[in-house]
Amino acid sequence: MSREEQIIKIISAKLGLNSRFFPLDDVALINTATLGISKQPRLLAFKCDMLVGSTDVPPSMLPAQIARKSLVSCISDFAAKGILPSSCLLSLGIPKLTSLEFIKSLAQGFLNASVEFGMNILGGDTNHSREFVIDCSMLGHTSLPISRIPVQSGARPGDIIVTSGPFGQTAAGLKIILDHAEANGQSKARFISAVMMPEPRLKFGVVLGRHMSSSIDSSDGLAYSLYRIATKSKVDFVIKRIPIAAGIKQFALENKLNCENLVMYGGEEFEIVGTIPSKEIRTVKRLANSAKIKLIEIGKVSKGNGRVLVTKEDDSLEELEDRGFSSL
Amino acid sequence: MSREEQIIKIISAKLGLNSRFFPLDDVALINTATLGISKQPRLLAFKCDMLVGSTDVPPSMLPAQIARKSLVSCISDFAAKGILPSSCLLSLGIPKLTSLEFIKSLAQGFLNASVEFGMNILGGDTNHSREFVIDCSMLGHTSLPISRIPVQSGARPGDIIVTSGPFGQTAAGLKIILDHAEANGQSKARFISAVMMPEPRLKFGVVLGRHMSSSIDSSDGLAYSLYRIATKSKVDFVIKRIPIAAGIKQFALENKLNCENLVMYGGEEFEIVGTIPSKEIRTVKRLANSAKIKLIEIGKVSKGNGRVLVTKEDDSLEELEDRGFSSL
Repeated sequence: MSREEQIIKIISAKLGLNSRFFPLDDVALINTATLGISKQPRLLAFKCDMLVGSTDVPPSMLPAQIARKSLVSCISDFAAKGILPSSCLLSLGIPKLTSLEFIKSLAQGFLNASVEFGMNILGGDTNHSREFVIDCSMLGHTSLPISRIPVQSGARPGDIIVTSGPFGQTAAGLKIILDHAEANGQSKARFISAVMMPEPRLKFGVVLGRHMSSSIDSSDGLAYSLYRIATKSKVDFVIKRIPIAAGIKQFALENKLNCENLVMYGGEEFEIVGTIPSKEIRTVKRLANSAKIKLIEIGKVSKGNGRVLVTKEDDSLEELEDRGFSSL
Repeated sequence: MSREEQIIKIISAKLGLNSRFFPLDDVALINTATLGISKQPRLLAFKCDMLVGSTDVPPSMLPAQIARKSLVSCISDFAAKGILPSSCLLSLGIPKLTSLEFIKSLAQGFLNASVEFGMNILGGDTNHSREFVIDCSMLGHTSLPISRIPVQSGARPGDIIVTSGPFGQTAAGLKIILDHAEANGQSKARFISAVMMPEPRLKFGVVLGRHMSSSIDSSDGLAYSLYRIATKSKVDFVIKRIPIAAGIKQFALENKLNCENLVMYGGEEFEIVGTIPSKEIRTVKRLANSAKIKLIEIGKVSKGNGRVLVTKEDDSLEELEDRGFSSL
């Protein structure tokens, strides 16, 4: 168990938290009818995510990009639950030496992100801290019944495993930024943009989420996300096609890096990974087509006990290493 | 303008935030009817508050007390709006060297606080950070109309100025903890407890709030709170009786400290400061009596332009210095 998992286990065990939505299922749901707010059951979705300067902000990231990223992490988790977020608060921890110019650019970034994502920023809290921190807490709501919110434990044998996009770009981008890896101009720009301006898959989630049996945001890495669903659903995943982003194979070759590592164990990719019941796959493909949503089939769920198996070129199955991208 | 005020001004100006509830009015309100969640208008209250290790945690504060305090700051702001909070999320930033024993005690503190305050802790987020940080985001709701939520700009000439308790204990406690000031046994325990186990005035707020014309939580100091309301309401405050906590005069004398400084410019006291229309004062006193709520009348609102005047022994008025307790 990683240190982060140990910490989460201690806290959630002590608080008797229902693991259905906490914390590895990432979004808390509240039924407004039980609160007496509404007569019909409506779900409020509630989520927080902290961006920490020393671990979540790569060098050369602009203040406006930092601001945007602090919202993206939350939005991506809403996307994975198929729920449109509508408003948020921002708690800022600001070191003493931070310039007011930086704060201005940060504020511009919050404004831009609120427009880009249709997000109502309602307010927040400012504090002095030793390192730069933004905690974003976000609210959304849906009239979908709770049974239509895809959870990490919902994958069933026979389901199709899908992702909202290919993987590897963020890991490549970080290698370029941190380790001076090389790539040709166009790929380089694309990989760096994946790090600096990540795209949460809100349209994918809101349109397709209700048809999915399970779903997770891939910010802890593709392998981790697959293992999370397979383990919680008590099934095996058989991966037939690894979703490698364009240019990643060449990038790995040129920089003597392992392509599978870049694709499987990168992080902060904000794609959605999940499963679709086979009887829903036609509907989902039609919806994806008409809404111009990228949908990549990567494998199939089978009976099992939480393994993720990758189909090799000779059709043999190899168990994927279960490790994630974690900051703790 | 303090640095914190500058930062807040830059961000809220950029985001075009309605200053009615942000950020110095401390709690964001959302009408569930406009969101389509309910037919009747119900108000969702939404608030975040960050506790930072280096500024909000005095030495010798226990992990369980730190956990409790991270909730108290939010609860106190709900209390000032007369709204009962019901659930929260916790974002944790945890330094690498933090022991798992510390995490266990922290989790116990969260559990205790959730019981003490009837709070449903729904989940959260864990991160590695350079210093210890807890950001608490909290939700509550009320069926009161928005006109019955006391705001900082609501004080009117003729209103009675009240507080939920006396002041000075926290400042004295911090002097004992940080500067080894001395006090006799009983007072010492009380002053230290004011720092380590602060009491948000939830009952005061929930029972009396709807009858108040203005209200603020005093965590930035009594003087600051009075000035905040007087300025925003464009009135003068005439203070007739300074609410000095028992033992503070003697403590100041014995430690050669200025009593007024301890009372007016301490912070983190989590009392409620506000105003009550004179026609409501009888009702409020009756409610306070029957619910055993402490209510201290300290003065009266008069026409003016944001001054806070203190009545001296010879009945002359002296303008109070406008400065707060701020961590930035």
